[in-house]
Amino acid sequence: MTGPAKPTDRASIRRTNLGLVLRLLRDSGPRSRARVATDTGLPKATISSLIGELVEHGLVSEGEFERDGAVGRPGHAVALDGRAVSGIGVEVNVDYLSVIALNLRGDLVAEGRIAIDVREAGPDAVLDSASRLVQDTIGTLLASGIRTLGVTLAAPGMIDLDAGAVSFASNIGWRGVAVVDGLRHRLGPAAPPVHLENDAKLGAVAEYLVASAAGIHDLLYLTGETGVGAGIIAGGRLLRGTAGFAGEVGHLPLGPADGPRCACGRVGCWETEVGLAALLRYAADPDDLVCDPSVDLVQRLAELRRRADSGDRRTRAALERIATGLGPGLVLLLDVLNPRLAVLGGYFAYFGDYLIDGVRREVNASVMAPNAGGCEIGLSTLGFTAAARGGAYLALDAVYEDPIGSALG
Amino acid sequence: MTGPAKPTDRASIRRTNLGLVLRLLRDSGPRSRARVATDTGLPKATISSLIGELVEHGLVSEGEFERDGAVGRPGHAVALDGRAVSGIGVEVNVDYLSVIALNLRGDLVAEGRIAIDVREAGPDAVLDSASRLVQDTIGTLLASGIRTLGVTLAAPGMIDLDAGAVSFASNIGWRGVAVVDGLRHRLGPAAPPVHLENDAKLGAVAEYLVASAAGIHDLLYLTGETGVGAGIIAGGRLLRGTAGFAGEVGHLPLGPADGPRCACGRVGCWETEVGLAALLRYAADPDDLVCDPSVDLVQRLAELRRRADSGDRRTRAALERIATGLGPGLVLLLDVLNPRLAVLGGYFAYFGDYLIDGVRREVNASVMAPNAGGCEIGLSTLGFTAAARGGAYLALDAVYEDPIGSALG
Repeated sequence: MTGPAKPTDRASIRRTNLGLVLRLLRDSGPRSRARVATDTGLPKATISSLIGELVEHGLVSEGEFERDGAVGRPGHAVALDGRAVSGIGVEVNVDYLSVIALNLRGDLVAEGRIAIDVREAGPDAVLDSASRLVQDTIGTLLASGIRTLGVTLAAPGMIDLDAGAVSFASNIGWRGVAVVDGLRHRLGPAAPPVHLENDAKLGAVAEYLVASAAGIHDLLYLTGETGVGAGIIAGGRLLRGTAGFAGEVGHLPLGPADGPRCACGRVGCWETEVGLAALLRYAADPDDLVCDPSVDLVQRLAELRRRADSGDRRTRAALERIATGLGPGLVLLLDVLNPRLAVLGGYFAYFGDYLIDGVRREVNASVMAPNAGGCEIGLSTLGFTAAARGGAYLALDAVYEDPIGSALG
Repeated sequence: MTGPAKPTDRASIRRTNLGLVLRLLRDSGPRSRARVATDTGLPKATISSLIGELVEHGLVSEGEFERDGAVGRPGHAVALDGRAVSGIGVEVNVDYLSVIALNLRGDLVAEGRIAIDVREAGPDAVLDSASRLVQDTIGTLLASGIRTLGVTLAAPGMIDLDAGAVSFASNIGWRGVAVVDGLRHRLGPAAPPVHLENDAKLGAVAEYLVASAAGIHDLLYLTGETGVGAGIIAGGRLLRGTAGFAGEVGHLPLGPADGPRCACGRVGCWETEVGLAALLRYAADPDDLVCDPSVDLVQRLAELRRRADSGDRRTRAALERIATGLGPGLVLLLDVLNPRLAVLGGYFAYFGDYLIDGVRREVNASVMAPNAGGCEIGLSTLGFTAAARGGAYLALDAVYEDPIGSALG
């Protein structure tokens, strides 16, 4: 279907073409100017002028690179540089804040994490901590000559993009928190642009960076943490829905009517069946170490992992129950969305080797389309950093839309 | 997120700009050349050249039109003409074939319908009938000086776009039917291009034509016929999924484990709860006239409608049960997709005045996002023609991508 009409004038064509060259070098690697001209279909003179401008702004460098996928000696070529610019992603989760900075080549250039009881601390104290994390990271990067182009905060709940606010995040108890203004205010007027997005959507963006290299453009990311959320990439684009609430699958009414009460106040939500609290409930008694919220989650998961690896029956049965519980929700999502790839993230990936066979079995038995509609189910390799990574990528994204405008920032 | 790199050369820019002008005139109505230049951001000289080419091919005409939304006397302006070209949509359903032809202005220029027991007749006989319908329509249009640019067949099942085949359509008993080749072969080498798409997806396309004029770009179309299917528009684009199976919601496992067996062979499929057969089962005994497949469906529905209007308790209760059954599935779809508008089509729209309050009540009570995520629930005004209309539109769509190439055909 043809989309809505979109003007094409000379300035926007140049902006488009600068972005085109930059994305080509990002997606396909270093290559000669002649090859850039062939690959983009643009005249050589235009390419020279575009590359000159990108070099001037430190986004592209010229030199001897292994190029064009050719075997043998490196030749003179142009390459995405972007070592001098970065984007920062900060994830707010139930019991930690984490930060990731990526440069334009996708290299990790800074990373950090602090434990914090987010619900207990309240939004003001959390934004104070997030602001300090971001400022420290910006400072560290600047000391290495790297400018930060933008910051994205990832939050586990519903986002009002227009207001830059978390509308409702049941697992951290936030409702109507103006995150973007709050963070901007704390970072001061010299800070780069601040964005806000749902954590599962950003996880999907991070996974799509990996998947798109393999030609996959329809992807479902399902993350298991205290809550359960989905991020959907359809035809290469993040599906947000009209108010940004797409992918709110943690509260799908898939559980029994006599199950435990969800943090949202209802009974029967999917995340009460397959969220982290459900795993802990199945695997251990309330007085067990792994259920103690004062112990760092990483340690508690490692202990559960140790038990599973040593063959502990109750832990194994708990994981099997999670796999079975994931089935019906994944089947629904695959019937509705028909993705090429469904990626399990968060704790689902941490225990992926115990979950994946059961999940695949459930899904293949029940998806309507033959062969699960061509969908593979895989495990995230990004650990608990997916959301922050996606945030860093989103913060950098403006440079591909308007390379010179945003690099001047 | 920035999408994959896309070349921009001179020929493709001209093609883009021709399409841009054509879409502007389609979406915003007649206007002066100067206004076209302002609205598109293109230089006046370029606009003159583009319009000259479009006039030459009969896609645009010049004259006195009411224009620019201005009140008062018509002025000299250009307008989408396109009275000389049309697209044809043919819908194959359980018990009828219908055909719709639209010209480039969206006017209905031909319409037809024949009753046929599609399952009983088998694919060959159905394609024979469809081919005759299309040939008659092409002939009639040509006699009025209207050329047909393309034909789309709408089928109630899973489509393999690459193969141009219906992979699986349980309600008509088709599996692996090569529709595009079959129809092409019957129509002969002089015929316009033949396309194939799922009926609910085409219904969504037809509804999006209406909704997009109101600035709505996230839409869910849910159609109730023998089967139940969904078409999803996300961010102004039809969501197909990796293999074209997105929206296969008729078989979501929402029904009880002891319900009737679905045509797909399973138990508990949503369409066994809310499809047309369910309504008939709730509303009447098997020996009732409305359950007699030898009577035209339109007549049977009219009889049910008469009973509901006259206050018949059983009919009213049956409709209430359908409304209640629609709730859980719609809630799932709204939680996953967060559309701005959910349109009920097919028989859901025919009985819409009896269903809509109950459906809205169910949905508002259970969607996770506040205020149903900003989604309104409405009724299709396209009757049972939505799929064929969407097909005709899709057949015409090529002209907006490449106005001159496809008009030359």
